[in-house]
Amino acid sequence: MPVYQAPVRDSMFLLNEVFGWDRYSNLPGFSDAPPDVVEAMLIEGAKLCEEVLQPLNHSGDLEGCTRHPDGTVTTPKGFNDAYKAYSEGGWIGLAANPDHGGQGLPYTLAGIINEYSASANMAFTMYPGLTQSAIAAIEEHASDELKALYLPKMISGEWSGTMNLTEPHCGTDLGLLKTKAIPNGDGTYAISGQKIFISAGEHDLSGNIVHLVLARIEGAPEGTKGISLFVVPKHIPGDSGLASEINGVSCGAIEHKMGIHANSTCVMNYDGAKGWLIGEENRGLNAMFVMMNEARLGVANQGLAQSEAAYQNAVQYAKERLQGRALSGPKQPEKPADPLLVHPDVRRMLMEIRAFNESARAFMMYASLKADLARRSPDEKQREEADDILGLLTPVLKGVLTDKGFENAVKAQQVFGGHGYIKEWGMEQFVRDARIAMIYEGANGIQALDLVGRKLARKGGKTVTAFFNEVAASVKDCSADEALKPYAEPVGAALGDLQKATMWFMQNAMAKPDNAGAGSTDYMHLMGLVAQGYMLLLIAKAALAKKASDADAAVWMDAKILTAKFFMERILPESAAHLARISSGADTMMAMPEEAF
Amino acid sequence: MPVYQAPVRDSMFLLNEVFGWDRYSNLPGFSDAPPDVVEAMLIEGAKLCEEVLQPLNHSGDLEGCTRHPDGTVTTPKGFNDAYKAYSEGGWIGLAANPDHGGQGLPYTLAGIINEYSASANMAFTMYPGLTQSAIAAIEEHASDELKALYLPKMISGEWSGTMNLTEPHCGTDLGLLKTKAIPNGDGTYAISGQKIFISAGEHDLSGNIVHLVLARIEGAPEGTKGISLFVVPKHIPGDSGLASEINGVSCGAIEHKMGIHANSTCVMNYDGAKGWLIGEENRGLNAMFVMMNEARLGVANQGLAQSEAAYQNAVQYAKERLQGRALSGPKQPEKPADPLLVHPDVRRMLMEIRAFNESARAFMMYASLKADLARRSPDEKQREEADDILGLLTPVLKGVLTDKGFENAVKAQQVFGGHGYIKEWGMEQFVRDARIAMIYEGANGIQALDLVGRKLARKGGKTVTAFFNEVAASVKDCSADEALKPYAEPVGAALGDLQKATMWFMQNAMAKPDNAGAGSTDYMHLMGLVAQGYMLLLIAKAALAKKASDADAAVWMDAKILTAKFFMERILPESAAHLARISSGADTMMAMPEEAF
Repeated sequence: MPVYQAPVRDSMFLLNEVFGWDRYSNLPGFSDAPPDVVEAMLIEGAKLCEEVLQPLNHSGDLEGCTRHPDGTVTTPKGFNDAYKAYSEGGWIGLAANPDHGGQGLPYTLAGIINEYSASANMAFTMYPGLTQSAIAAIEEHASDELKALYLPKMISGEWSGTMNLTEPHCGTDLGLLKTKAIPNGDGTYAISGQKIFISAGEHDLSGNIVHLVLARIEGAPEGTKGISLFVVPKHIPGDSGLASEINGVSCGAIEHKMGIHANSTCVMNYDGAKGWLIGEENRGLNAMFVMMNEARLGVANQGLAQSEAAYQNAVQYAKERLQGRALSGPKQPEKPADPLLVHPDVRRMLMEIRAFNESARAFMMYASLKADLARRSPDEKQREEADDILGLLTPVLKGVLTDKGFENAVKAQQVFGGHGYIKEWGMEQFVRDARIAMIYEGANGIQALDLVGRKLARKGGKTVTAFFNEVAASVKDCSADEALKPYAEPVGAALGDLQKATMWFMQNAMAKPDNAGAGSTDYMHLMGLVAQGYMLLLIAKAALAKKASDADAAVWMDAKILTAKFFMERILPESAAHLARISSGADTMMAMPEEAF
Repeated sequence: MPVYQAPVRDSMFLLNEVFGWDRYSNLPGFSDAPPDVVEAMLIEGAKLCEEVLQPLNHSGDLEGCTRHPDGTVTTPKGFNDAYKAYSEGGWIGLAANPDHGGQGLPYTLAGIINEYSASANMAFTMYPGLTQSAIAAIEEHASDELKALYLPKMISGEWSGTMNLTEPHCGTDLGLLKTKAIPNGDGTYAISGQKIFISAGEHDLSGNIVHLVLARIEGAPEGTKGISLFVVPKHIPGDSGLASEINGVSCGAIEHKMGIHANSTCVMNYDGAKGWLIGEENRGLNAMFVMMNEARLGVANQGLAQSEAAYQNAVQYAKERLQGRALSGPKQPEKPADPLLVHPDVRRMLMEIRAFNESARAFMMYASLKADLARRSPDEKQREEADDILGLLTPVLKGVLTDKGFENAVKAQQVFGGHGYIKEWGMEQFVRDARIAMIYEGANGIQALDLVGRKLARKGGKTVTAFFNEVAASVKDCSADEALKPYAEPVGAALGDLQKATMWFMQNAMAKPDNAGAGSTDYMHLMGLVAQGYMLLLIAKAALAKKASDADAAVWMDAKILTAKFFMERILPESAAHLARISSGADTMMAMPEEAF
């Protein structure tokens, strides 16, 4: 059976040694979380993930969710108790506003716990995860009344949340959506239409389910400018705040999917269901984007999480499975064969995954700290700058961490040979589960388009320039140190490729936007390479310092330094291929006539 | 539901225009297959694949195989009739020796049919596919008596075949195998042991199942030098040739796998089962390699086949699904949105798959023709040279076509967005089915090691040099033609990288074999890039010539030329990253202590 151990030590290293957690102590919530408190909390969260959630991952996949003829849905055995433990531990509202019962702790800590949780059991984690995103949208856009009614129960986990965007004929292109909202005359609306692919749309974990639904108010403009956001509870809360009256929303079917079987993906039918407007009329996409940006970071985390879980299992197998002899001569001559780990090609696979995991974890934390700054800094300029960088990097995190997270799950499965293909070993589940993260919350091609089509141009390129300058400054700083130079120079070279690619877009995509579209995915991955290289440069720097001051940490720090070196030698060289592809433009692919495909 | 149309026109183009089929007419079997006969045959095979096999692909996946308490296994509904149609059409023995009822046609044609068949239904195709490999091993190594007894019935499909290598504790490292063979004194052996992952090990399609089993004769040396190959029939043929007596072999369980659900993957228990030696004692691996090399080409074909099937469905979806508007302005303003195909990033994905498919199909045919030459040329030198090149390229075909075939299935699934993740659309099945091809018949890491550890050094590097010279000659020839220069030069550059990588191994891997292991997978893919680039250069050359002589073919030929251009611009630039990784060597990954993983 698969194993999992939450990387608390690594999280703490990043927090303290790489990102200087104490530098943030002036922000609300951070003063409640000094390093020793954080560590105790992470250990507590890790325990829940390792002992409660992970043991249900494989069984949950095999059992899946069951929809009954009355439209109710049962989650797999053990999920109810696990959900209770998760809610009662206060994990859902870790970073939520204390005014409504949240703990008000840094978002960064919630991000770390979400990684552990998604490693242990991705399908389970989606239930509280969607609630967290719904909480964020309600906190930011709903009226005080709605906040007071919904937030405390959602934060406590008594009620859960969903997001309802997709319809059968529209996923990415929300302008086409048809779900209608007709004013009831009392300030509420009657919502009618069908939504598909609704994760956690119906289940038996919480007493009520709070659907956030995009719909078009009767008479509103066509396209994206006529879409509003509504809260549509499964049970309508009475005056007492108890959910009693059943609303006109029901689960019509659950989808049969490649993976995340333990999460119920529902067709939701709205038949005059009562809804309350969140935010302004026709500004629903704006409100939903709060939820989506939060959810995109959550999905990026899932990519890392599956890669980490798959890695740990592949490492264990590579140490235990005896097969073949080392090319340099037997390493365990007393045994019938050497362990897989002696083989360079097996190490290559493991190191590729590991280099990704360590840099992706840092990248997530870097972004999470920006999210905390964007929301909590007392300095408006700092809030704005942090929010800009976060906006720029969110599509990169979502697209790159899920693409590579999936690739790594496949790689880890490969280490198992034939056993990787057999369900009981659990490796193929990581692959199937990780696959969805490339698709939902905006398919990765949409992330890439968001990056090159919107985020690059924002504020006349000021944000992207600020990010390049930050990386360049770090490269320059580290290049001055002989010990760090071998890590800094490759990052500088990759940054150069990224800057050339950016320049190429400026010169070639204004007049011909297809040139941006044709290079978008490569650009996203090129930026991911630079960001991850930058993270490993910071890690190498911190590791060298730590090693000098703490002899006990030497083996562990050397491993970090080797991992960084591996990334520079073997992963960063891809930057040149990305640049070559981007610079080749759109002409060839666009010249192909439709009928020739 | 998924669609599939066999690419007969493309196969014929390759056969006639690219590889000059008529140049082979002096070989046995080829004279029976002039182009018009070949085309009629391919059309007939395509019909069977499209109308009989493909409609059972999705249902077969959902139903899977069932093992009954008595150890018998039932295949999915419809498989029996399909198998009957396949056998009776003579497809199993297409290339087999006419002395035993085969049609004696070129192996190349069997390869084409196997591609179509594996596109239509990979799990089904494995049943006759394994029989074909077993036929090849028996034809080459068994005694005349065994040949006469088994081949006619296997060629007709009345009996089917399997290969039994893997045991619970050994997959790659066959030297560890424990299955025993004890002489019965009458020339037969009693075989005892357990084999796992036996594809088509037990089923209800054929009257008898002929297991080819690796086992160690009592007293034989340890390791790979003490392994012999046996034929162990499920039913022991009586004097009349009818299979009656039940042998001591049974299916203990079927595996629950990620994909290829319609193929029964069995745990086979041998309990003193009667077996007959094939070839010499202790030379079993040698005999099995005939079967494995044949099977490896078949698996390479599966990678291409899944990529092709996934591509066709993604293209159809991209033409039909309306979502968003073209970046350059609406293309179908009368409709609510443009089809996906207007988006450059969607075209990028489709073109990447297409460029692979066209070059991989050519690469398969190139290798198949070598296989025909190696077996049938009247000229010994030509036989030997062809066999050398085939040996060199077999691991490249297996490793690259299955790695990329899987990636392409994932890419095609991505075109479908959320629908790609739902079972009923069929795209996720291509991904799950394609995944196994990277693992079985020698995991791709083993293919890479075979290439750099064995094949490169063979005959003092003469074979690989011959291949490089062939590519270089074509590059030189085409560079002289202005129209072909843009295709020739990038192939020349990639060949340069491959030659540098080869030189690097020569200088760095002799003393330190880990340097070869660390670069092996990259080297395999680098050679794949060069080979596929070479194929597209030949295709572009043929397409330009065809276009000049046949105006009706212009649109089709232009599409081939654009596809080649896309490959040169966007895929070939990866060669430099492979070279950089190879040249970085093994030091970093080998420096990581075991406990640090």
